[in-house]
Amino acid sequence: MSSSPLSQLALPHVLRLHAYTPGLQPTEAGWVKLNTNECPYPPSPRVAEALRREIGADGASLRLYPNPKSIPLRAAVAQLHGLKEENVCIGNGSDDILNLLVRIFCAASTAGRPAGAPDGHALLGATAGWMFPSYSLYPVLVEIQDGRAAIIEFDRSMQLPLARIAASSARAFFLTSPNAPTGVAFSNADLERVLTSFRGLLIVDEAYAPFAAENAIPLLARFPNLVVVRTLSKAYALAGIRVGYALAAPELIGLLDRVRDSYNVNRLSQAAAIAALGDRDHFASIVAKVRATRDQQLSRFSNERGWFTYPSQANFIFTEPRNARGETGLTVAKSAYDFLCSRKVLVRHFPNHALTASFLRISIGTDDEMGVLQQSLDAWRQGGA
Amino acid sequence: MSSSPLSQLALPHVLRLHAYTPGLQPTEAGWVKLNTNECPYPPSPRVAEALRREIGADGASLRLYPNPKSIPLRAAVAQLHGLKEENVCIGNGSDDILNLLVRIFCAASTAGRPAGAPDGHALLGATAGWMFPSYSLYPVLVEIQDGRAAIIEFDRSMQLPLARIAASSARAFFLTSPNAPTGVAFSNADLERVLTSFRGLLIVDEAYAPFAAENAIPLLARFPNLVVVRTLSKAYALAGIRVGYALAAPELIGLLDRVRDSYNVNRLSQAAAIAALGDRDHFASIVAKVRATRDQQLSRFSNERGWFTYPSQANFIFTEPRNARGETGLTVAKSAYDFLCSRKVLVRHFPNHALTASFLRISIGTDDEMGVLQQSLDAWRQGGA
Repeated sequence: MSSSPLSQLALPHVLRLHAYTPGLQPTEAGWVKLNTNECPYPPSPRVAEALRREIGADGASLRLYPNPKSIPLRAAVAQLHGLKEENVCIGNGSDDILNLLVRIFCAASTAGRPAGAPDGHALLGATAGWMFPSYSLYPVLVEIQDGRAAIIEFDRSMQLPLARIAASSARAFFLTSPNAPTGVAFSNADLERVLTSFRGLLIVDEAYAPFAAENAIPLLARFPNLVVVRTLSKAYALAGIRVGYALAAPELIGLLDRVRDSYNVNRLSQAAAIAALGDRDHFASIVAKVRATRDQQLSRFSNERGWFTYPSQANFIFTEPRNARGETGLTVAKSAYDFLCSRKVLVRHFPNHALTASFLRISIGTDDEMGVLQQSLDAWRQGGA
Repeated sequence: MSSSPLSQLALPHVLRLHAYTPGLQPTEAGWVKLNTNECPYPPSPRVAEALRREIGADGASLRLYPNPKSIPLRAAVAQLHGLKEENVCIGNGSDDILNLLVRIFCAASTAGRPAGAPDGHALLGATAGWMFPSYSLYPVLVEIQDGRAAIIEFDRSMQLPLARIAASSARAFFLTSPNAPTGVAFSNADLERVLTSFRGLLIVDEAYAPFAAENAIPLLARFPNLVVVRTLSKAYALAGIRVGYALAAPELIGLLDRVRDSYNVNRLSQAAAIAALGDRDHFASIVAKVRATRDQQLSRFSNERGWFTYPSQANFIFTEPRNARGETGLTVAKSAYDFLCSRKVLVRHFPNHALTASFLRISIGTDDEMGVLQQSLDAWRQGGA
């Protein structure tokens, strides 16, 4: 072995990777945590019951492998959406599903990359596409795959550039709807236009769709080139158990099953997810509360403060802070972010691009938490800004 | 879209994939389940306690994402093995770790594969290697990656061919020790010889090492080209929670963290694993019971029945059934397998290779379960064979 073996053995693109940066998960108490779009309310009480049942007196069932295909959970998901079991694949979080989709559709490109070509931007033969800004995991997954990306930038309107997507060279296009970090949702009318004009597979990442007016599931019956991806992390208040799922034609589900780890979802998460999906009243009540708070906050930011704020259909708000002198921009947003941090209010700031740098993304918390946020922003404007 | 879009959009190698075949997981009760090397005893009672604590009254903590790096669990693993936190990466099962290692070291080969070359066998530039037979997941993971394999076959002695491994062109070599499905363990003396002669990374997959006389962890301090992979599925009786880990130099752990999903291990599994690792008495008692039963069974098969049986250091036995006429072979093994199935005793048969086809792999169950197994094999020899 040489003295630096890994740098010679590991694939070159892996040595260049930077890991995905998740939002901070502070371990000490006392934070108003509005930075990772978690649900401020607990999950259905049926979840704790189901888990206690699975654990039993002594956890004996845990000695056995889980159901490898999560069949009872697939059945529950299918029933919920009026689909069949063969339309459903369960992931260890929806991130697992997104990763599997990259592995199915996005070829590693090392061998064929033209010398001197810029990494990851709109090369001929690109195989994965997405809008910028959207979920920042997509580039991480494609870089891990050493794949190529065809990235289309929004303009400040954040409306879908339909013609540009139709012309994309991507084999699979990730579309977050409602989008992150803006909260802007895309209509099924627009999605239909993409589905009929774009030649590749459209992956609609619907992590936040339960908070929106519309979703793409009704389109599945007519478009075999559509995959809808969902998670239990947000509207089911179960970010801690890591369960997400794909809805698609059986042929695509079959491909996901071939590249999926055969025991990707553990016994406890399967049991918890089935219980959560079964409690429609609890789900409806969480969604109603989050939407009501969100709409109040949208009005507070847009109308009362006069801050430019996208019309969110998600469980967060993307707003452009304006200081006492009426200024906006990266420095102003950073100042608000830092001030909130000093008050133990945690939100998210994406400083690296003009479309996001002047904004803060604020998860919808309880009404009390949003009260603390607003008071802290008042204090920032008065003193900190 | 064309009428068969997926066949044109998905990567060609994915369309050719076959999913890993896990052992049967019968959903109905009444089986003596000796087919997937699960532990016949329940996990530490501290696991159920820790889970109840994490769930609390209403599961409220589950609304929050898990610790993204499983830091408290890394610390527990490090302490257990006398290592540091930066020597540990936690996976969603050890399969997750194995998959990440393939993604770090094994290049996709589509672009460069010579026309007409056989798939997956000892090509120039091969990047992942393993012994055959060993854990049947390795080829699945490498095929998903569209990578190349350098496979070295055992002979019937099942001893390590040290010179052939040293000469392997693999960048990373997977070695299951104790091996599956044979149960044969490799000495640290042999591993040292590999580590000093082989130019690549050696991954010692120690799923079954807690049942063995020796393990490779003491070698980590001296060999930066060594990774040891462990699981809680076997000796900790926690196949249901999907937790495994890698032990290696910090540089390699850093690479695993770059390709790992940022929330790969859920909150409940982290809590359960920490509790299980902390109960050394329970662990020691499980290991002692399984080893005692295994050694009795080895003697029963080898000495009393006179069946050729490898000297297992794992929690299973690989034995070559002999029928009443003294015959062995694929047909005999299949006959025994089928007869056991008809008695609701489930074991594993690998019919596709001469080194395995005449054998059955039998997980070590409770003494009662092994009694049922032996009675059923007696009945097979008398009537069914």
